[in-house]
Amino acid sequence: MTIKKIDLNTSILANNEIWAQKNRELFDTHGIFTVNMMSSPGSGKTTIIEKSLEYFIPHFKMGIIVGDIETTEDANRLKGRGVPVVQINTHGACHLDARMISGALNSFNLEELDLLIVENVGNLVCPADFSFGEDLKVAVLSTPEGNDKVRKYPDMFRKSHAVIINKIDLIDFVDFNLDRVERDLKNLGSRAEIFPMAASKGQGVEAWCQWLMSKVRKAN
Amino acid sequence: MTIKKIDLNTSILANNEIWAQKNRELFDTHGIFTVNMMSSPGSGKTTIIEKSLEYFIPHFKMGIIVGDIETTEDANRLKGRGVPVVQINTHGACHLDARMISGALNSFNLEELDLLIVENVGNLVCPADFSFGEDLKVAVLSTPEGNDKVRKYPDMFRKSHAVIINKIDLIDFVDFNLDRVERDLKNLGSRAEIFPMAASKGQGVEAWCQWLMSKVRKAN
Repeated sequence: MTIKKIDLNTSILANNEIWAQKNRELFDTHGIFTVNMMSSPGSGKTTIIEKSLEYFIPHFKMGIIVGDIETTEDANRLKGRGVPVVQINTHGACHLDARMISGALNSFNLEELDLLIVENVGNLVCPADFSFGEDLKVAVLSTPEGNDKVRKYPDMFRKSHAVIINKIDLIDFVDFNLDRVERDLKNLGSRAEIFPMAASKGQGVEAWCQWLMSKVRKAN
Repeated sequence: MTIKKIDLNTSILANNEIWAQKNRELFDTHGIFTVNMMSSPGSGKTTIIEKSLEYFIPHFKMGIIVGDIETTEDANRLKGRGVPVVQINTHGACHLDARMISGALNSFNLEELDLLIVENVGNLVCPADFSFGEDLKVAVLSTPEGNDKVRKYPDMFRKSHAVIINKIDLIDFVDFNLDRVERDLKNLGSRAEIFPMAASKGQGVEAWCQWLMSKVRKAN
């Protein structure tokens, strides 16, 4: 049974890689920079994207894809800002895969896109396994989740190019030690940029946006 | 591809059901009441179990199984309390399944167990699909995660017999409305008992423990 499961997983991941490659070619052809935002449920991905829009909109033609098991709540929060938003409902699936993203890309005018941000399903495990052809993976960790999460979910954090430590304004009320998280990231071999943030209050958003904008510009 | 994936999932779930049934028979034979605790990463499952032990230990012979992707941190926190603790490391798998629980049961003297609490992998999606033969499913939702989680992860909450609203002491600092969560649960058809709690401060722990103890006693 174990061997059988590994075979199935390998086949699913290989299939994902084929679709990711197709997406990658589309992104390259159209000069689209792509970001995969991942985290636990409720760590603040949607709020971070909301607050980042004001920095990005003057500089880039943006698109957003939002993944959720059910509901369109996150997409609704992001609409009406002049940025096209596409919601993917996975109906039970615990992550977005490259084929889902490929389908969602049909809803955009790719000529009109410089920067595509994908908000993944809230889950610290499964999304780490499924790239969709993105340039950057970004993990969000909020302080109330506790500072053991890098150690307990190493795959997600090892693969991420940036780690946003959100809800930093709650740090005095919860058991969270930023030094410990930085040390755990180093122990994983991570060279991720770390951005402390209180997105709901706009704190720390600019530093993250400046960093991301420099990455987009370097890629073009 | 879609149809193929559904077949694989069906087969995996059917296989899980066979192992769950085997576990169920063992639990019945030995008179063991079992609880499956599920939540996002960092919502406080381990702390809730820690704080509950003092209520349970005088009344029941307990065992604990802890599921994590990596590390034995949660198990270490729970050890030294006179209760046997078994850690399952899933090495990437996003949930505990019935076969993993079956394996872990070999580490217990089943004659010496009345109440087995299983702390699942931190994940609001996948664990909802995989019963291990348990009597009760309990979902933990912490206030910093936000009050949209019942709507966004309906399967987990629909299936749970109790919902612990943890970190209620942070409610003034975060965007969380308990009435909204109760309404969302009702809209799902849930009849779950709801327990507001601040586990790290011991608040609300007794009500939950009394409820669970009454369930264990009724089952015997």
